[in-house]
Amino acid sequence: MQRFFLEIAYDGTAYHGWQLQDNAVTVQQRLNEALQKIIRLPVETVGAGRTDTGVHAKQLFVHLDVPASRIPDGGRFLHSLNALLPPDIAVKRLLPVNAGAHARFDAIERAYEYHIHFEKNPFLVHRSWQLRDRPNVEEMNRAAAYLLGTQDFGCFSKSHTQVFTNICSVKKAVWEAQAEGLVFHIAADRFLRNMVRAIVGTLLEIGLKQKAPETICDIIRSKDRAQAGTSVPAHGLYLTKVVYPYISELP
Amino acid sequence: MQRFFLEIAYDGTAYHGWQLQDNAVTVQQRLNEALQKIIRLPVETVGAGRTDTGVHAKQLFVHLDVPASRIPDGGRFLHSLNALLPPDIAVKRLLPVNAGAHARFDAIERAYEYHIHFEKNPFLVHRSWQLRDRPNVEEMNRAAAYLLGTQDFGCFSKSHTQVFTNICSVKKAVWEAQAEGLVFHIAADRFLRNMVRAIVGTLLEIGLKQKAPETICDIIRSKDRAQAGTSVPAHGLYLTKVVYPYISELP
Repeated sequence: MQRFFLEIAYDGTAYHGWQLQDNAVTVQQRLNEALQKIIRLPVETVGAGRTDTGVHAKQLFVHLDVPASRIPDGGRFLHSLNALLPPDIAVKRLLPVNAGAHARFDAIERAYEYHIHFEKNPFLVHRSWQLRDRPNVEEMNRAAAYLLGTQDFGCFSKSHTQVFTNICSVKKAVWEAQAEGLVFHIAADRFLRNMVRAIVGTLLEIGLKQKAPETICDIIRSKDRAQAGTSVPAHGLYLTKVVYPYISELP
Repeated sequence: MQRFFLEIAYDGTAYHGWQLQDNAVTVQQRLNEALQKIIRLPVETVGAGRTDTGVHAKQLFVHLDVPASRIPDGGRFLHSLNALLPPDIAVKRLLPVNAGAHARFDAIERAYEYHIHFEKNPFLVHRSWQLRDRPNVEEMNRAAAYLLGTQDFGCFSKSHTQVFTNICSVKKAVWEAQAEGLVFHIAADRFLRNMVRAIVGTLLEIGLKQKAPETICDIIRSKDRAQAGTSVPAHGLYLTKVVYPYISELP
């Protein structure tokens, strides 16, 4: 058996997230189905993390074990797999890795983007969240700076999730103005469930309701989800990067 | 009655083109329905031109006549109209014009883009045409330069169309490399039916099959549709601009 990492991307609009579910179509299900057609063996895949219903991924890594003989030509394998997958799921790279490599546990950094626009745009349906009012980007960026570093982010976590710790190290948190609107970039070693959408909602309350940027410090300190802002909708959210110490980024 | 120009944009994926049809849903039908709900009078709209099934428009102008009293506030009118229209059709500007102004006859220039990409991309489904092989862009641009100027473009026209003349003045025709692939830009005073898709198909044959760029001159001179290349699919095509002498472009 050879372990491989598979780099994938998907438009999450049509799926109940990444993770296999009993009664709903997910990206992992469609991927496993296509893999089994090509490899003609039962295949188990492990993803770098979950994404919720409607969330997109520009980059997600998955690991799987396959007898190397079943994939004589990586390029052809990717081509066949893309032909079998629906148009809204793509595979980009197949990388042989050591037997112990793990798509979830070995990831040292993950990055997300959240997209917002203001004018109705037919080409951003399901791709970006339309807001009517323009938030104060400077104030949101002053607040976002307080997210940096290693802290307990329990205030932004869905309650009743079973995790050992709510401590995450946020390495980047910044709003950027783009042609169509605003993009929030956030990178961290790990994320709690619903964390990015709760952070974006909290920052938007600061940017729209003229709250002081420093209020985010009290919210973080409270560790209380009720203190943070409302979660923003899934369709503006993109998982954009998963970093491993042994996988080079694409140029 | 006051004549207005309405600037619209749409994702053409779900529509049988712009123009009203008896047995198919079109953009014009959806627009007329929404207008009549707001104005509460029968409304006739005249578009700057047709687009085929699946073709997109980043900018199209439409004219209509409405008693000015029915639109006391242009901003609110656009907001209500956008709320009534489906998400894949947007209205952007409402401009009062002189009674004789005509969205089709007064347009002095139209511009289109054709989008091509090479790697499977979940975010470009219905938005760009995926090609497997990379054409020679330099050779395609040498060929495209021969399109410039005032010529008979009958070779790129759908046959049996009833037009007075096949003469068009092409002002711009150039391929540009972008992050996701290639974009062909073309602008002219007018376009014949199917002209852009036939031109793109002809240029791609030059770029992919190593034909000489100068072959396009023989094709144009022949005035024979059979000499030109196969039309490319609709979903990579965008109407991007319609220019009137009396309407300023948006910044």
